[in-house]
Amino acid sequence: MNPAAPSPFAFLFGVHNHQPVGNFRSVFEQAFADSYRPFLEALLRYPGVKVTAHYSGPLLEYMEAREKTCWDFLRELVGRGQVELLGGGFYEPILTIIPEEDRQGQIRMMSDFLAEHFGRRPRGIWLTERVWEPSLPKTLGRAGIEYSLLDEEHFHYAGIRDLHAYHITEDEGFSLKIFPIDKKLRYLIPFRGLEEIGSRFDDIAALGGLAVLGDDGEKFGLWPGTKAWVYGEGWLDRFLTFLESRGVRTLTFAEALDSRPPAGRVYLPPASYEEMMEWVLEPAAAARLEDLKRAVPVESRRFLRGGFFREFFLKYPESHHLHKRMLHVSKKVRESGRTQALKDLYRAQGNDPYWHGVFGGLYLPHLREAAYESLLKAESALPPEAAWTAVDFDCDGRLELVWRDERIGLFVKPSAGGAIIEIDDLPLARNLTDVLSRRPEAYHVRRDPADSTGGSIHELAKELPPGAERLFRYDLRPRWSCLDRFLESETGPERLGEDERRDLGDFADRDYQWIASGPVLRLSCLGSVRVGEEPVFVRIEKDIIPDQTGFRVVTRLRNEGGTRASFLFAPEWSFYQIESEISSENDGVLLCSGRWTFRIEPSGVIGQVPIETLSQSEKGFDIIRQGVCLRPCWPVELDPFASFTAEVVLKKTAKSENEDG
Amino acid sequence: MNPAAPSPFAFLFGVHNHQPVGNFRSVFEQAFADSYRPFLEALLRYPGVKVTAHYSGPLLEYMEAREKTCWDFLRELVGRGQVELLGGGFYEPILTIIPEEDRQGQIRMMSDFLAEHFGRRPRGIWLTERVWEPSLPKTLGRAGIEYSLLDEEHFHYAGIRDLHAYHITEDEGFSLKIFPIDKKLRYLIPFRGLEEIGSRFDDIAALGGLAVLGDDGEKFGLWPGTKAWVYGEGWLDRFLTFLESRGVRTLTFAEALDSRPPAGRVYLPPASYEEMMEWVLEPAAAARLEDLKRAVPVESRRFLRGGFFREFFLKYPESHHLHKRMLHVSKKVRESGRTQALKDLYRAQGNDPYWHGVFGGLYLPHLREAAYESLLKAESALPPEAAWTAVDFDCDGRLELVWRDERIGLFVKPSAGGAIIEIDDLPLARNLTDVLSRRPEAYHVRRDPADSTGGSIHELAKELPPGAERLFRYDLRPRWSCLDRFLESETGPERLGEDERRDLGDFADRDYQWIASGPVLRLSCLGSVRVGEEPVFVRIEKDIIPDQTGFRVVTRLRNEGGTRASFLFAPEWSFYQIESEISSENDGVLLCSGRWTFRIEPSGVIGQVPIETLSQSEKGFDIIRQGVCLRPCWPVELDPFASFTAEVVLKKTAKSENEDG
Repeated sequence: MNPAAPSPFAFLFGVHNHQPVGNFRSVFEQAFADSYRPFLEALLRYPGVKVTAHYSGPLLEYMEAREKTCWDFLRELVGRGQVELLGGGFYEPILTIIPEEDRQGQIRMMSDFLAEHFGRRPRGIWLTERVWEPSLPKTLGRAGIEYSLLDEEHFHYAGIRDLHAYHITEDEGFSLKIFPIDKKLRYLIPFRGLEEIGSRFDDIAALGGLAVLGDDGEKFGLWPGTKAWVYGEGWLDRFLTFLESRGVRTLTFAEALDSRPPAGRVYLPPASYEEMMEWVLEPAAAARLEDLKRAVPVESRRFLRGGFFREFFLKYPESHHLHKRMLHVSKKVRESGRTQALKDLYRAQGNDPYWHGVFGGLYLPHLREAAYESLLKAESALPPEAAWTAVDFDCDGRLELVWRDERIGLFVKPSAGGAIIEIDDLPLARNLTDVLSRRPEAYHVRRDPADSTGGSIHELAKELPPGAERLFRYDLRPRWSCLDRFLESETGPERLGEDERRDLGDFADRDYQWIASGPVLRLSCLGSVRVGEEPVFVRIEKDIIPDQTGFRVVTRLRNEGGTRASFLFAPEWSFYQIESEISSENDGVLLCSGRWTFRIEPSGVIGQVPIETLSQSEKGFDIIRQGVCLRPCWPVELDPFASFTAEVVLKKTAKSENEDG
Repeated sequence: MNPAAPSPFAFLFGVHNHQPVGNFRSVFEQAFADSYRPFLEALLRYPGVKVTAHYSGPLLEYMEAREKTCWDFLRELVGRGQVELLGGGFYEPILTIIPEEDRQGQIRMMSDFLAEHFGRRPRGIWLTERVWEPSLPKTLGRAGIEYSLLDEEHFHYAGIRDLHAYHITEDEGFSLKIFPIDKKLRYLIPFRGLEEIGSRFDDIAALGGLAVLGDDGEKFGLWPGTKAWVYGEGWLDRFLTFLESRGVRTLTFAEALDSRPPAGRVYLPPASYEEMMEWVLEPAAAARLEDLKRAVPVESRRFLRGGFFREFFLKYPESHHLHKRMLHVSKKVRESGRTQALKDLYRAQGNDPYWHGVFGGLYLPHLREAAYESLLKAESALPPEAAWTAVDFDCDGRLELVWRDERIGLFVKPSAGGAIIEIDDLPLARNLTDVLSRRPEAYHVRRDPADSTGGSIHELAKELPPGAERLFRYDLRPRWSCLDRFLESETGPERLGEDERRDLGDFADRDYQWIASGPVLRLSCLGSVRVGEEPVFVRIEKDIIPDQTGFRVVTRLRNEGGTRASFLFAPEWSFYQIESEISSENDGVLLCSGRWTFRIEPSGVIGQVPIETLSQSEKGFDIIRQGVCLRPCWPVELDPFASFTAEVVLKKTAKSENEDG
């Protein structure tokens, strides 16, 4: 029905360049020095080679402010018609996980920016992490976008064999043209020699097709080892010379669109690149899928699927929390009509801290910190609601209680053991409780290095660091705060680090009743504490009370049983920590570089347990201090029907008051 | 994190009742007599049994107009609180394939209808064919819907094991609660005895879960053999007695929602029931998937996927055409603001003629006829555009040409051999060219009856009718019209039925140039005709010219080569036909029960070739006359640079003018 017109071979050279919101200045500097700048310089020397490039918003803002040379190079290349720029969501969000209004806003922001500074609106977008869902054509069509690039995988799942042409799809009658990225080229460039690449070109030319590359620009200089290879040893110059001398026709994607009709129609299921759909799975499931892939004949692989992107919100509770807070703030910002908060909101939607694989920055505290900073700035632009408000912001069917005045934000989850799940310092725009829990990852198991093949970063053999095993202790639940825990009386501070499996109480997953009156939120629950053989019934009542300098939690335990009970009441609190932000003082613990104090009453031991994770990145393995767990320890002896009262006070210090004021 | 509260066992009895827009009156009558009415009568006798029921819009409209007894029964049951009614899209559309505005409109229409006639707005919906995509929670949330039912399969793919509870998901922060339907119960009820069902209940009760059934109401009396079993032999009475006597607690879905929290959060990939995702595949792919399912261990099945619903638009060009026309009309209706056309548009969105499996009515001409009738009525409410308009209404990246005055609509596709792809009689609201092409289906291959097991209609052993093999001749392309075809001079009329593989020309897939001026659309193409050994270059110019009584096509062939050429010019036209709508007369062929004549000039033979299909349905196999292919046959001898001109005239007859006027 839709025969491709005779289509002479061409090479479509697409690169995607991105650094996350909140990444260190030094990383931006290095990325430009080692990769983005020399790449543009090379293109200037080969005016015959057409390239289609995407720079995410954080890079464009940085380039405009601090890399004027690159900025001018890029304007020159675009002006020449040698480089076509791709649009996208400005701060590189995964489009499918942000609200439609924000998708439109982010894409428009990028298109406007490119039109203003580079003289033309983009016709195509780079789809962040190629995370596809079938409703995207409508989103993109509404935003004036004609085309995008996706992976081969998306097309395999739809049983499409013609991978060297663009295809057309639709949603609600909005059309979108899609180029499949050639996976072999993605693995060959820039890791292999010109012969292999030329032979791949020949294969594609024999089919009368297009050779489509769309891949990370950081492969050209920033990925480990590539600077020496791509520039030092002259790979890129040789490659560009090869293109010119061999007469390889290069086209921008828009030129390819304009020169031929689509090869056919497609409907693609949700997908991303193959590795992403494995990363989103739990380790055991990922292992099963890997086995299955080995066992199934190639022609049936199209029927095999991993997970899909949204499942990161099930795998990582911290990604879920950030995501639902983002949706919550987005809704409030839109309802308030305070559009000046939109840019901060969009910044908080950058994809990196929402997921983890080899890439993905969920494990990196500074990226999560930056996301919360933007989110809290956006939220602070809204009028405070200094009253406890019940809302299911995290979409789990249970109500949370939210307090937000001009100083602090508090999020309490009665259904999860009456936990405090977020404490925000609003003037500082910092989520004090942004602590990643420790959980198993597929790569925590040593792999057989013989399994690793190919030139992809996804498959580089990486060695676990020595002593990594000590980090393979996992949390059963997210690292929330104000969790009511009970230990044996004789537990010494050296054993506080042992995990919540030693809890003698059964309050962890209980659904606390709640009532609010003025600033006081009262949570109440009847549970039991195992003392010796017998569980003793215990009622917990805790009041969470914000005030002018912070908030306090007053907890009363009452023995509701017939036996005397003795135990250690050792509630858990976990705080975000970078470097040496936490220190002990005589009168409590200083948090957040001394801006906050954590005090208890009656006085007693406060155990400190570091929370460290082991994660992988493109460079290898990282051991990261995510935070610290503070455990006030009160020895309690309770006769039947007797009570014990304890208080935790979190106060902003004079120091922070001065700073913030 | 979200432990299920202790959840005593309950049985959630959901039934879904539907007859398509355009189904025969006799089917509606039989469905009420054999199934819907006795089912409601039984419920009235067992007031302790709670049921959640869905009746699609066509049934509700019919019930209100002609089945007052049932209508009153249902109002009585709803008034008692014994039956909860589910909402949905009024005319039972697949929500994901219609525009968002229409989703809202259809759901609202149903919710308003239920509120008006039954006193309450629905909280849940029956999701047509359980066709799920991840963006639906937003659609449903906006429409005020709290919950729906999906199949087990959806949950398997997400790796969810707790299938006897409801779960919660979200899109853009809009929450939706979802009940997984128990597949075993779906196979047991009403086909098996009470012991087996009781034992399934016991298994679920032991897990502290909910036994959730959601299935077609037609299983209770309308499916083959079920009337005698369910009512004649008293299965339903025994089952309802069993529920009461055994003290099985029944709950409506809303009651279940209100009595317990969700078991957890989920994100589900696009899916429907397992069989649907096989039906959408091409036969060869379906066979490979079937093999794979047998080979893969059960615990890895979650990674196996078939196709997804939108792929029906790739498998069946006629489904694609209807779908894109529907989107096209929907857009125009919305842009025009003529909301009185909305009801006809919604009627045209009923799911049945858009797909085919065991259910699905794509093969049934009367259902397609009804869909086009509604669509054309909606379109006729818009101002005519009596000029050739270029639009890519079918979203394939190529322009179509559309003519629509008050009498006829014409759709021409230059890129597909200059075909006429739709001819509409607008006063009659009939698409004259709605002819289903013949294509391979998985069940055209005889299966081993030993493969059939279980009580599902999906697996009932069905015998191909004798002589079915003669129908296994397939079309290479959709059955479009005004297709320029060339045959050998000596081809007799008896051989015209042989398919387009005998075409000596190569115009079939060519992209015709076009230009329009007033009512004249001129299509032009240079191609070749194989005459003897040598292909001769031939230019075709055809003018399509609508006029007051219909339209005509004037085709001029010009020999552009150096050799004399002789051949039969035998263009193909295919027309919709039900029963004896087509007859030959001296002066041409009468179409559409004599309302149209098809004449040629110069006069000559007009071959007639019936188009018949073999398809499966719940009752067995159907041989269906889809239409007739008319082939004017002109013997042509062309010297070099000589021309031949032929004309096809389609006219509305005096008869139809009288009727329509």
